[in-house]
Amino acid sequence: MQTLLLNGDDVAENARLSELIPAIEDAFAAYERGDAQMPPKSYIDLPQYNGDFRSMPAYLDAGSWDAAGIKWVNVHPDNPADHELPTVLGTMIYSDPETAVPLAIMDGTELTMQRTGAAAAVATDHLAVEDAGSMGIIGAGVQAYTQLEAIAEVRPIERVVISDLDEERVERFVSEFSDRFDVSGGSIEEAASCDVLSTVTPVEEPIVSREAVGEYTHINAMGADAEGKHEIADEVLLDAKLVIDDHAQTTHSGEINVPYNAGVLGDEDIHAAIGEIVVGDEEGRTPEDGVTVFDSTGLAIQDVAAAHVVYEHADENDNGYPFDLLGLM
Amino acid sequence: MQTLLLNGDDVAENARLSELIPAIEDAFAAYERGDAQMPPKSYIDLPQYNGDFRSMPAYLDAGSWDAAGIKWVNVHPDNPADHELPTVLGTMIYSDPETAVPLAIMDGTELTMQRTGAAAAVATDHLAVEDAGSMGIIGAGVQAYTQLEAIAEVRPIERVVISDLDEERVERFVSEFSDRFDVSGGSIEEAASCDVLSTVTPVEEPIVSREAVGEYTHINAMGADAEGKHEIADEVLLDAKLVIDDHAQTTHSGEINVPYNAGVLGDEDIHAAIGEIVVGDEEGRTPEDGVTVFDSTGLAIQDVAAAHVVYEHADENDNGYPFDLLGLM
Repeated sequence: MQTLLLNGDDVAENARLSELIPAIEDAFAAYERGDAQMPPKSYIDLPQYNGDFRSMPAYLDAGSWDAAGIKWVNVHPDNPADHELPTVLGTMIYSDPETAVPLAIMDGTELTMQRTGAAAAVATDHLAVEDAGSMGIIGAGVQAYTQLEAIAEVRPIERVVISDLDEERVERFVSEFSDRFDVSGGSIEEAASCDVLSTVTPVEEPIVSREAVGEYTHINAMGADAEGKHEIADEVLLDAKLVIDDHAQTTHSGEINVPYNAGVLGDEDIHAAIGEIVVGDEEGRTPEDGVTVFDSTGLAIQDVAAAHVVYEHADENDNGYPFDLLGLM
Repeated sequence: MQTLLLNGDDVAENARLSELIPAIEDAFAAYERGDAQMPPKSYIDLPQYNGDFRSMPAYLDAGSWDAAGIKWVNVHPDNPADHELPTVLGTMIYSDPETAVPLAIMDGTELTMQRTGAAAAVATDHLAVEDAGSMGIIGAGVQAYTQLEAIAEVRPIERVVISDLDEERVERFVSEFSDRFDVSGGSIEEAASCDVLSTVTPVEEPIVSREAVGEYTHINAMGADAEGKHEIADEVLLDAKLVIDDHAQTTHSGEINVPYNAGVLGDEDIHAAIGEIVVGDEEGRTPEDGVTVFDSTGLAIQDVAAAHVVYEHADENDNGYPFDLLGLM
């Protein structure tokens, strides 16, 4: 019994969106039903390196399949300038829950991008207008690509506006997608007026104002990932049907953390967790709704669900490199 | 920048005891000084499979080196009978603290055996009589081998008594070591009367009585690893100079957990943590001492310290298999 090693290309190749998106939806549902285990993230803080490590173990039982594993991930903001390395590096161990055999070890960075795109797609499917044909993306980094790929699976996106201060990144994004979409660079306002908006920036202070957002826009707020960071003006959040992935994580470090901890926004302003909508306990978009917002922080169960899809496909297609790490041959 | 994959043979080959034992001692010292971070183990309980997963992240700064990583490990007692697999399987990710690059991924099962032997050697070095020439081992499983190898590094062991109900395991152990030691199978009493005793059994109720133990025996109590399990009679612990690896872990699931939680043994009966002895805040064996006991539960910092030694040697000797898991080439 070997362990399958899957690099970033293998992960991207085998994270089939047609299966990944339902798997992430299953994960949200399992979490809501209590069929998942997700201990709080453990942090190791290393101020001497301006960085930290986070361990994200999880198990979920989706009914027809179950999955266990752990993602070991970090945030080292000095990496790009000091070491020509990415700020975030993830490694995922995907294990058989029944025997604990590590079935696969994979690039957790690519996995995170894929499962984050899929989470936005699940939320978009429940919260965006049915005929959403335009999508805005603010922030043209790596996450922008998986946002568009995943959301185009659930809505008939034709027109795309990509907004970023870095013109090179905009051009790269446009040239990647110009054969499949009517895609162009634009302002924050142009992006925010689309039917669906994903924000994937590292900004600390809001850049999306109330006036910029379209009347029926669904916003995936993906960028905020630490205390004190937010991308969307408080007024947008307060006016919107507001959906979160997890109460503890979003109030601590998600899009809502700043207004929540300032007392500007309270539990009464949160419509539901995405899991409650997925299982049918709460409604998604209704005809009365205007702006909707999904505050996504990223859950360990998403990583495990995505790893399940990637491993199953890779194993089936003989992708990856099998290695006898534990001497179980 | 590739990630070095190290299987069990690579780990055993590169866990050089002459460096591993000081590294484990450094880890205990760093923990005592507050130069280590070790979040509590996270558990995922899977009663449906009669198993669990544990994540053990840690960082330590030993002064001249530092190290970070995580061990993902399980206990699945039905594995041998139902799947012909070991009960415990470990996978270790060893990371550069400065950049978070996963320098190595290694067999955590072999690593655990090596670091556990080294921890017993550190304790033995501080607590056994200087001229200890005889060693008893109760339990002839895989841990018995690394106990003898490591302890023979710190004391002039010549005579070895191995005690186990399974004659085949005894014979295998004897034949492995008969060229280096005067080694023979024997009773629990014969083993327990030696200068050094290591207990490495899965028993739940004590098997080492007060009468069996020699007047100046140092005992490494390695086997107890869960609530309700112990190997040594309460009277031995109460009479001994009692040293632990960690208060929270030993009172929860170490050798002392049963008498401690029954109120038979209290904090006043615990002489010190091994780290306090290593840094010189508390004394090890003194001429007045009789029996000494080290209650070892195994700390995440030991895994990280051992992984450091293994990785450094393997890298130097071009051992293992380099793999570009994260696309950092």
